[in-house]
Amino acid sequence: MSSKVVGILGGGQLGRMLAASASLLNIQVIVLDVGVDAPAKQIIASSSHIDGSFRDKDKIVELASKVDVLTVEIEHVDVEALEAVQRSHPNVAIHPSPSTIRLIQDKFHQKEHLSSVGCPLGPFQAVDGTPEAIAHAAKELGLPLMLKSRTMAYDGRGNYVLRSTDSQSVAAAIHFLGSGSRDLYAEKWVPFVKELAVMVVRGIDGTVSSYPAVETVHRASICHLVWAPFRLSSIDQDPALPTKAERVAREAVEKAFQGAGVFGVEMFLLNDGEILVNEIAPRPHNSGHYTIEACESSQYDNHLRSILGLPLGSTRIKVGAAGMLNVLGSSNDTSKSFASSSSLFFSDDSLVDKLTHIALSTPGASPHLYGKAQSRKGRKMGHITIVGTSDAEVRERMTPLLTCIAEFEGDSQSAQPSSFNPSHLLGYSHPHPLITIIMGSDSDLPTLLPATQILTKYFPSIPFEVTLVSAHRTPIRLVNFAKSAAARGIQVIIAGAGGAAHLPGMVASLTGLPVVGVPVDSKSVSGGGGGGLGGVDAMWSILQMPRGIPVATVAINNSTNAALLAVRIISAGQPHLATQMEDYLQRLGEEVETKVDVMGKVGWAKYGK
Amino acid sequence: MSSKVVGILGGGQLGRMLAASASLLNIQVIVLDVGVDAPAKQIIASSSHIDGSFRDKDKIVELASKVDVLTVEIEHVDVEALEAVQRSHPNVAIHPSPSTIRLIQDKFHQKEHLSSVGCPLGPFQAVDGTPEAIAHAAKELGLPLMLKSRTMAYDGRGNYVLRSTDSQSVAAAIHFLGSGSRDLYAEKWVPFVKELAVMVVRGIDGTVSSYPAVETVHRASICHLVWAPFRLSSIDQDPALPTKAERVAREAVEKAFQGAGVFGVEMFLLNDGEILVNEIAPRPHNSGHYTIEACESSQYDNHLRSILGLPLGSTRIKVGAAGMLNVLGSSNDTSKSFASSSSLFFSDDSLVDKLTHIALSTPGASPHLYGKAQSRKGRKMGHITIVGTSDAEVRERMTPLLTCIAEFEGDSQSAQPSSFNPSHLLGYSHPHPLITIIMGSDSDLPTLLPATQILTKYFPSIPFEVTLVSAHRTPIRLVNFAKSAAARGIQVIIAGAGGAAHLPGMVASLTGLPVVGVPVDSKSVSGGGGGGLGGVDAMWSILQMPRGIPVATVAINNSTNAALLAVRIISAGQPHLATQMEDYLQRLGEEVETKVDVMGKVGWAKYGK
Repeated sequence: MSSKVVGILGGGQLGRMLAASASLLNIQVIVLDVGVDAPAKQIIASSSHIDGSFRDKDKIVELASKVDVLTVEIEHVDVEALEAVQRSHPNVAIHPSPSTIRLIQDKFHQKEHLSSVGCPLGPFQAVDGTPEAIAHAAKELGLPLMLKSRTMAYDGRGNYVLRSTDSQSVAAAIHFLGSGSRDLYAEKWVPFVKELAVMVVRGIDGTVSSYPAVETVHRASICHLVWAPFRLSSIDQDPALPTKAERVAREAVEKAFQGAGVFGVEMFLLNDGEILVNEIAPRPHNSGHYTIEACESSQYDNHLRSILGLPLGSTRIKVGAAGMLNVLGSSNDTSKSFASSSSLFFSDDSLVDKLTHIALSTPGASPHLYGKAQSRKGRKMGHITIVGTSDAEVRERMTPLLTCIAEFEGDSQSAQPSSFNPSHLLGYSHPHPLITIIMGSDSDLPTLLPATQILTKYFPSIPFEVTLVSAHRTPIRLVNFAKSAAARGIQVIIAGAGGAAHLPGMVASLTGLPVVGVPVDSKSVSGGGGGGLGGVDAMWSILQMPRGIPVATVAINNSTNAALLAVRIISAGQPHLATQMEDYLQRLGEEVETKVDVMGKVGWAKYGK
Repeated sequence: MSSKVVGILGGGQLGRMLAASASLLNIQVIVLDVGVDAPAKQIIASSSHIDGSFRDKDKIVELASKVDVLTVEIEHVDVEALEAVQRSHPNVAIHPSPSTIRLIQDKFHQKEHLSSVGCPLGPFQAVDGTPEAIAHAAKELGLPLMLKSRTMAYDGRGNYVLRSTDSQSVAAAIHFLGSGSRDLYAEKWVPFVKELAVMVVRGIDGTVSSYPAVETVHRASICHLVWAPFRLSSIDQDPALPTKAERVAREAVEKAFQGAGVFGVEMFLLNDGEILVNEIAPRPHNSGHYTIEACESSQYDNHLRSILGLPLGSTRIKVGAAGMLNVLGSSNDTSKSFASSSSLFFSDDSLVDKLTHIALSTPGASPHLYGKAQSRKGRKMGHITIVGTSDAEVRERMTPLLTCIAEFEGDSQSAQPSSFNPSHLLGYSHPHPLITIIMGSDSDLPTLLPATQILTKYFPSIPFEVTLVSAHRTPIRLVNFAKSAAARGIQVIIAGAGGAAHLPGMVASLTGLPVVGVPVDSKSVSGGGGGGLGGVDAMWSILQMPRGIPVATVAINNSTNAALLAVRIISAGQPHLATQMEDYLQRLGEEVETKVDVMGKVGWAKYGK
């Protein structure tokens, strides 16, 4: 039995998942929250749990007297009580440190502090809760203007987007944010192209590591979706963005805060590649739920390890890709329900129920329900993590869940349209490809079409894209394309080229991905520059790469084999994909067997006539 | 809140992990076991848990009155009580069915039943517990003879290996198995080459699916290690063995037992490829612990889903490979401890403690401690699951744990020697390779050595093997080699050949793995059959493969690029490996930059002189 006891201020879903990690190591946990049935208390049997508020000084001291380490699952705790515990219970470690929690609690102070240590931030300023002050801030920072409560703002509470400075709009803002709202500040609207998040973990010895950067999608300021890892959506984005996001997050934590534990760093990615820090939470974070199923150690494992002074766990992602959907309460009115109410047995909320059922039918999906006593519109009731071998597979698996939400809301916009049905995409590029097929000229397209056809026909689960990249006419596009490929999630590049055929080799010199080269007989295509060499010119250009930079060369014009090679590459070590290739090989054999039969029956003299 | 309540007979580690899965779905669980602090009770707070034995009729009825579904985590329950519940509580579902549990409890009846439905089994027979009967059985079945108690035999209890029929040996067997041991049976010793296990899951609707076959390693009849997935250890083994093991296991469950739930099927693999069923447990099983971290849904998730009539979860393995080490109590005498006793705080058992600490420092390792009140020699106190991208990585990560056990026991044999340190293996094949390098003749070796050198120097974490396979001189070896490659865990095949150079293409026609072909200039090597064509003969033979069977061809004699291509293939989609290739590319560039400097400084006229 462990001799160290961990006390958690707060018994919600984060505390629950932290307790689950603790039970793996047989570490005793005591939870302070109101009620005997808080989510975290349900899954860790203890007569020592404390019924009371994590803002109650006396209860915090009572908890401190029972534990060796204090931590929080919510930052809205009584900091003065924690500071008093620091003095009265010098042997009780508190992580994150009370000074960090104090800083975090006032979002304006947090921003000032982050700014003072050099974190990249958008413009912001304090503002009184008067119409005049708000109008003044809007004039300085522009519209729309983000108005935020300095304290107690989370999950959409305390955030207001001001779109006009007419008196009615300003009055509405003041009303929403609370009448006595001197406690405000304003942020210049950040025209982000994506929101990113990185979980950072710091050990007691100061060691800092980070999980992969993820993309977060918010609706009404509440986390809706997380896609891991973050992928570039265009070849024009800086391929170093994912590592840059991790570095910005690590540096923010290192410079700005003290103490051990995990930190959720939310960021904005701007159009020009700049990354701004938005907010930091000194605890496990919604954007890190996916780590339970997708990483070698979860954020909860690592929070516990760090506050207990144990070695930090690996933050490596162990699956190809992951997605996380928050399951929010749909309504306070439980009479609003789906027709199929017969299947309701996980919660009293029909949407929560429906999503859980869909998740149970979705391969790779892990539903988490938090055991909250009552559903409420917008309340976090659970989440669903989906893992898969590729971004495309994760999105395909997520689609029925998003469709369900869209149907419930009567809003077809909120479902992602990128279903994986290949007939949707026939002749067009998949938005999340594993294979990219490029050629130097559109005159090469007929030679490369067989690659697309064999992929579509026999390997519909492997998504691909097709585009033009010319080594000699678009050299900068070539560099951008090759440099960004891996960060876009591409796993194999097929490059077709005729004549001097520099494309495959130049691409290979700019990426660490495997490149398959298809020598094109330029004479065989209209407008080709070949001189009747039958593609041998391109073949030698692609094949005889110098030592250090390999290109996988296939036969002249044989894009079919290039596609099949790409499938073999993607399938290697993935039993469920390898089966597809074995089936294909068997079919090839059966075709010949059929011909054997026919030749035997009709005789070779009449065969084929 | 779920309206269905699950009752578990038994509150040990299997019940604990089942309860953890239940809490994810917010499903209420009530546990029947002795004590208020049984492992399963610790992690599911409930005032309804029952303090009593799972063999106590009244307690079982009490549990039945509180739940909708009854299940077991141990098969040694009171079956008559369950049958009575079937009659008295028709609305309470019982999975596995009492008839299945009854069959399983008596191992001799289990064997008779499995035999009657056509399962492949080794010879066995009932035997009285008398010296005469045992001697008779030994005469019929041969020595060594496996003597087993028909009931209550597990984790080594009730199993005895009789090696001689002298009266002293027979008396020792009778003594070990209990004095009143009429309840025996004998099994012919099975000369297995490996022990395998498959977790099978059956839904209420009869749907059956299976997890990948795994290799299990026992010590003193107790599960010691699990390696997932099961890999062939030689090219002479049937490549269909992994799927055959799954099929044998599924068929055994389908034919022999009723009811929903997961079933652990233990099997023997014989030298000739035959697979015999050893035992079946109708519940989550030690050989399936790895599924928690390594599969899309765990065996515990799936047991719950199946007994509740929910859709079954995906059994796909989501990592490259996994290993599981049981953490057994080391001693009843807690004074026997390691020197570093300062770090002991997880348990009162110093070996358990030490292993837990090593696991915390091992990337990809997830320690599970069961919260058992007291350690005892051989008692299952916890387990450690290790995931990784390859068999080699998992074994490398496991090595410090096995070394620790060996040191504790003063037995260097029990540690696996296959450390991943490449200097161990310089010039020799790794036992768990990802890349295989083959050539038609040893005269090709000098041409292929650069491939081995670049792998060893720059990519030491990617294990490889080197061997000879000749298309024309060892055609059967070629077939066996290619067919078994994927099932041995190989991900890329590099094949070098000169002259007619059939090797790469023929290998590619027999496997779904990517094959990289290196055309060898046969004239350049002694004994080569080339006719002064400079390797162009081999190049065309490898390059111009027919549509359907691709070979990735590299430049003539350029085995360096073949190795680099193999690394690119293995690294695609694995960020931690891709970094190695990017570093290599950068180093190539830096070498040229250095030369730029030198040429600028000394002038081109004197450069290199």
